[in-house]
Amino acid sequence: MVISILGHGVVGKGVWEMLQGNPLYTVRNVLVKKGEKTADFMVESFDTILHDDSELVIECMGGIDPAFEFTSKCMEAGKSIISSNKALVAAHGIDLLNIARRKNLSFLFSAACGGAIPILQNLCLARQTDSIVWAGGILNGTTNFILDNMDRNGLGFDEALAQAKALGYAEADPTADISGMDTMRKIMLISMVAYDVLPNSDYSIEGIQSVSAADFSVAAKLGYTIRLIGRCGLADSGRLYAYVQPFLCRKGSLYSSILTNTNLAQYHGTNAGDMSFLGQGAGRYPTASAILRDVSSVTNGQKQILSDKCLVGFACNNAKECVMKYFVRSTGAGFSALSDKVKVEKVLCEENGVSFAVTEPVSVKDMHEAAAEARRKGNAVFFAALQEEA
Amino acid sequence: MVISILGHGVVGKGVWEMLQGNPLYTVRNVLVKKGEKTADFMVESFDTILHDDSELVIECMGGIDPAFEFTSKCMEAGKSIISSNKALVAAHGIDLLNIARRKNLSFLFSAACGGAIPILQNLCLARQTDSIVWAGGILNGTTNFILDNMDRNGLGFDEALAQAKALGYAEADPTADISGMDTMRKIMLISMVAYDVLPNSDYSIEGIQSVSAADFSVAAKLGYTIRLIGRCGLADSGRLYAYVQPFLCRKGSLYSSILTNTNLAQYHGTNAGDMSFLGQGAGRYPTASAILRDVSSVTNGQKQILSDKCLVGFACNNAKECVMKYFVRSTGAGFSALSDKVKVEKVLCEENGVSFAVTEPVSVKDMHEAAAEARRKGNAVFFAALQEEA
Repeated sequence: MVISILGHGVVGKGVWEMLQGNPLYTVRNVLVKKGEKTADFMVESFDTILHDDSELVIECMGGIDPAFEFTSKCMEAGKSIISSNKALVAAHGIDLLNIARRKNLSFLFSAACGGAIPILQNLCLARQTDSIVWAGGILNGTTNFILDNMDRNGLGFDEALAQAKALGYAEADPTADISGMDTMRKIMLISMVAYDVLPNSDYSIEGIQSVSAADFSVAAKLGYTIRLIGRCGLADSGRLYAYVQPFLCRKGSLYSSILTNTNLAQYHGTNAGDMSFLGQGAGRYPTASAILRDVSSVTNGQKQILSDKCLVGFACNNAKECVMKYFVRSTGAGFSALSDKVKVEKVLCEENGVSFAVTEPVSVKDMHEAAAEARRKGNAVFFAALQEEA
Repeated sequence: MVISILGHGVVGKGVWEMLQGNPLYTVRNVLVKKGEKTADFMVESFDTILHDDSELVIECMGGIDPAFEFTSKCMEAGKSIISSNKALVAAHGIDLLNIARRKNLSFLFSAACGGAIPILQNLCLARQTDSIVWAGGILNGTTNFILDNMDRNGLGFDEALAQAKALGYAEADPTADISGMDTMRKIMLISMVAYDVLPNSDYSIEGIQSVSAADFSVAAKLGYTIRLIGRCGLADSGRLYAYVQPFLCRKGSLYSSILTNTNLAQYHGTNAGDMSFLGQGAGRYPTASAILRDVSSVTNGQKQILSDKCLVGFACNNAKECVMKYFVRSTGAGFSALSDKVKVEKVLCEENGVSFAVTEPVSVKDMHEAAAEARRKGNAVFFAALQEEA
């Protein structure tokens, strides 16, 4: 099979390297940035790839513009697409699916969620004969590296973030990671595969910007550590929910065993029970390995990972039905500013006017909204859901 | 698709239930034992299924005789086979593959290794574009339940085994589980899928019959617990090794987080890195869920999980090249009876004439043989490999 590649950065170069020496595949052209052509196989004009003899184009550019233009044009020209670009799939996955179905082409994007972890393909197969009750996990290596570093080395947030940047685990602008948005984009992909629904609004996101060394210290005394977890699933009403938020996870639990930048992807099937997949969520070769698995899947005849029903993106539930207890840190004024919906069940401790408490069960939506309201009034608030006992 | 099922026990009944109400599939006949027919869809004669209009037969009988006769006859009659029977696949997988290839039929057996965990299918896909350095894990729920119970509740082996029997986690005759043979059969299947090699001799197996409460107590003081782990892989020479043995696993590690009867299947890919899959390794619905995934895969057009090269079973390396440190418990006479190949690096403690020690690095084969030799001379020996630091 003749393949061309859009992008020659961290992932694109890894894909190119892995395809070398594989007798099943020939790489025809690799699109590089203007002025970066240093070898014959590199081209600086997208049109060269659009008109070459490749049957499959692997998109590793990142971003939406011009990735959407390029991938949709390739499909219109009869080329199948594999993408590692979660922003592209979250924004235009259904548009690309429509073209792929019309032209009978493959459109796969395993590497866009979980790096090396094959969560999307396994969900795609499992849902054909099992009911996926929920799916999600620890899907951002940058934030997990920061949280693990704070936990095991007692660092503050700024210090842990600086170290993550220095070691290449965080980008210069880490906003998408630490805000939880990167995790939510992966949840959006999981939701598309598991539920045929793109949650494009009304989800709840809390990142890790508010976490402090004191939170880890109090959590540790209770036997917990802190992880950032995203999840989507079906509420009792049958409506979909989706959220990203910190969790207090019991030491010794699977969540607490996820160290450094490792990722954990999970689903719960009515018949299969809890299924967990651990691996490298980022990095050149792990991510490229997921793309290469998709290349094999295309070779094996797979067309789509999204089902035919996944044609209409619509809003999901706002996690109103997901109810859990929360660990909350704030001042007295902050606790007062949390709306009536968030009731303190037990104050754990107080230090210098800052209180740590466990709430009564409250919905994800109410907790997130109450914290936003208290913050608007100038109060510092950290909150994390209490992991249910396994 | 019309399907018939051989067997209506724990797994077979689960498969039958899960296929009800799925509009894609019709169950024609279910083979039950003589005198157990209680419904129209049940038949007591295999010939009825052999001559029915099913395209796919799901074998959930267990054992080799008559499962091999029935499955091979079904294939000769043009029916694809899905099996949950690891004894059958370990003994006759290559025979069945040969018929399936000749007749262009599907032959899948996901449920035979890891229950609900999709390790075989993921290995099958991953190996097409990555090098599998090793694969294995905690693949027997009975032994893990016993070990976890001894660890967390301080029970002795006999007590923990009795409890496992009472709760239905161990069979009346638990020999295959506690001897490590069940785990080795799963390693044989993993090896066939990952390496095209059926290790049918020259592997090393140590079960958990020798473990005692004292071993857990000393291990805990060192910060470890004990797990039974099977593994196969390629040694530096390129030869395959395969073994099953207890490991001392550091508390807080992924291995130590595998509780009760949960299973863990892993592989290490040169590009993907460490990949881990956790889930239910047994039980009606988890096991049936793996069979149903195979049904989807057959529907999606998959023929084999074994490669064309997996035609000749041959012996593997005997783990001579796998070298590690061991934790050993024995008496003074026992340590003397361990051959010269096993050298004590450090004595950890002594109690009532029984010593606990860590050895210098020694090959798996030498350690297993030395322990067998010391036992032949009447000495009690427990040994467990020391988990390398992650």
